[in-house]
Amino acid sequence: MSELAAEAEKLDAIDELARVRSQFVLDGVVYLDGNSLGALPVGVPGRVEDVVRRQWGELRIRSWDESGWWTAPERIGDRIAPLVGAAAGQIVVGDSTSVNVFKALVAAVRMAGEGRDEIVVDATTFPTDGYIAESAARMTGCTLRPVAPAEVRGTLGERTAAVLLNHVDYRTGRLHDLPALTAAVHAAGAVVVWDLCHSAGALPVGLDEHGVDLAVGCTYKYLNGGPGSPAYLYVRRELQGRFDSPLPGWNSHAEPFGMRSEYEPAAGALRGRVGTPDILSMLALEAALDVWDGDGEGEGVSIGAVRAKSLALTDFFLECVGAYVPAGRVESVTPVAHAERGSQVALRCEGAGDVMKRLIERGVVGDFRHPDVLRFGFTPLYVGFGDVERAARVLGASLEEQ
Amino acid sequence: MSELAAEAEKLDAIDELARVRSQFVLDGVVYLDGNSLGALPVGVPGRVEDVVRRQWGELRIRSWDESGWWTAPERIGDRIAPLVGAAAGQIVVGDSTSVNVFKALVAAVRMAGEGRDEIVVDATTFPTDGYIAESAARMTGCTLRPVAPAEVRGTLGERTAAVLLNHVDYRTGRLHDLPALTAAVHAAGAVVVWDLCHSAGALPVGLDEHGVDLAVGCTYKYLNGGPGSPAYLYVRRELQGRFDSPLPGWNSHAEPFGMRSEYEPAAGALRGRVGTPDILSMLALEAALDVWDGDGEGEGVSIGAVRAKSLALTDFFLECVGAYVPAGRVESVTPVAHAERGSQVALRCEGAGDVMKRLIERGVVGDFRHPDVLRFGFTPLYVGFGDVERAARVLGASLEEQ
Repeated sequence: MSELAAEAEKLDAIDELARVRSQFVLDGVVYLDGNSLGALPVGVPGRVEDVVRRQWGELRIRSWDESGWWTAPERIGDRIAPLVGAAAGQIVVGDSTSVNVFKALVAAVRMAGEGRDEIVVDATTFPTDGYIAESAARMTGCTLRPVAPAEVRGTLGERTAAVLLNHVDYRTGRLHDLPALTAAVHAAGAVVVWDLCHSAGALPVGLDEHGVDLAVGCTYKYLNGGPGSPAYLYVRRELQGRFDSPLPGWNSHAEPFGMRSEYEPAAGALRGRVGTPDILSMLALEAALDVWDGDGEGEGVSIGAVRAKSLALTDFFLECVGAYVPAGRVESVTPVAHAERGSQVALRCEGAGDVMKRLIERGVVGDFRHPDVLRFGFTPLYVGFGDVERAARVLGASLEEQ
Repeated sequence: MSELAAEAEKLDAIDELARVRSQFVLDGVVYLDGNSLGALPVGVPGRVEDVVRRQWGELRIRSWDESGWWTAPERIGDRIAPLVGAAAGQIVVGDSTSVNVFKALVAAVRMAGEGRDEIVVDATTFPTDGYIAESAARMTGCTLRPVAPAEVRGTLGERTAAVLLNHVDYRTGRLHDLPALTAAVHAAGAVVVWDLCHSAGALPVGLDEHGVDLAVGCTYKYLNGGPGSPAYLYVRRELQGRFDSPLPGWNSHAEPFGMRSEYEPAAGALRGRVGTPDILSMLALEAALDVWDGDGEGEGVSIGAVRAKSLALTDFFLECVGAYVPAGRVESVTPVAHAERGSQVALRCEGAGDVMKRLIERGVVGDFRHPDVLRFGFTPLYVGFGDVERAARVLGASLEEQ
């Protein structure tokens, strides 16, 4: 056994989260793509079957009340809340991330005072955020200013209405300084919207603590909600009364079954709802969130423990890559500093698309991101140090043979 | 056996759609709420289980290609197309009806020429359409003009940009004249958006034939897609190049995985997509649509046969109500003329909320609609004439006792 393999064994033996792995359906594959689609939690299939066969098939329409369908968006929002450092009553689940970015950004502009007519957006953002921000700007009479994250502070001013930022960059894995950037946006008198897609469930976010205004995120990455599972919207409690949605569907009405022709928004986070919630996907997500509560015997999973393991995994991966991969064949574009690193490692590599294909054939599943990035995501709930060592070893061997 | 019960038996015996009932999970209940939540098709649970356990659990990320997840919105749109009289390539599935109303209405205003700054909306519409229309008007600089359907023609003029209409009124069950109203909107030079929630799957719509511009609809009523299953958006082929979405998410990009910072809309109906599709709910819907293809032995279900049975069911229900219900206790607000009737019967009734509770206790499930309406929906795929006779009989008995 190599030194690194022995090290991996030691690290796995003392890993307090190793017990959580049994709550996921996994096979011999090293799955480092949980930041694209989280693995299936074992509790989900049974729950979905119950929702389909009994709740829909037998109770039918009664389930809107009796099975808690109607209140699912806010109930499941409250399950996500502790994972992103939010008190209850501030998150609703529903719609896609793109749709929630639109809601949040338009509402943010409307919260900003008169004379503020610029939306600042992270120019390196996941593209959909930029496209939606452009539409939000167009529809609110604002100008869109895409800038590199490092230039955000210098761009803020009296005209800034809203700022849309990514907590973790989807390509490089860089973690942005949410507390400092939030404070800077507030100092400029503007409203901040954070996209948590690549951080929620992988590291502490601290929405309440840092005074974040609005946030959105998907649930199919580190929250393991399943393919295309609904996204969520956070609206800080003090701002809820001023949350003026561009998508005021009947689910956000103060009295949805009053069927009133005049719109009157509901109080609280409910105001972020739009249309009828997508129950199958939503309740699959609810079951997936059970893994955070522990296995019934052990205690719940703390996001602090997840973060500690995540950093240990990415540190160890970089160490193994250094040892196994021929010099000069890959270059990490993920920051070395812990404070700047999310839960992934992105390696620039010539022919990355083909290299990733070969890795997948050999049971190491990561992601290729245009044009030359090998992206490896580390979900601390089910990835172990042995997986990490194997992934780096297979990568090294693949590149040797080339 | 009463005369009407004997008549029901005769009608059931010659019902060519009676064979389809076995494709649904039903019990002793008379289910007349399929216009709120369609019953569970028998093929759905197995399909959902496969999607969860194999496609998600085993193939994981590979399923986006290998299991056809990525192309599901347009593939399933093409399955809905023949049911609403549309050729392939004009419908995408995804998001809620409310979100699709927003997309359609904003896009409609943008298609309308300069100087057109009014949105006309059916004032008796399902409330969410009105709320969303108000938002669309506000965000496009238009004025919203809510008018009774009968007044739509007189309201149209040079300033009309877009008109949002319901094919069937959710409360009264009135069927509006889609061909004539579409022609009137076109004669005024405006763009029409039809909401098909209460007609698709219950009667012929003829989108292509009548030159409809844009249409939206849900899939959980007469299409039986399951609770909160995704809605759909129709964009007539000739208008697709001018469809300018207010929600230009990355799924609607010409090259979604190019991760380009500049937005370039995809060609065709794809342009109506937004974010990552909700796979569990979407593939449950796909399985639910199998019932229209026949049982593998018999031939497919024609929407013409569905309409014929629907009218026979509602006619027979009105006849049975006339016979069984004490005079003066209920008043139908659903039009008698076939050309003006959808697939439901709405009865105004004092204390309708309590009456419906008692009916449900006795195994007849309909809906109560504020303030005084008993709503009964007839899904020809699984409701029989015996059900209809029993529902009216139980209603009569309940009102007698009161």
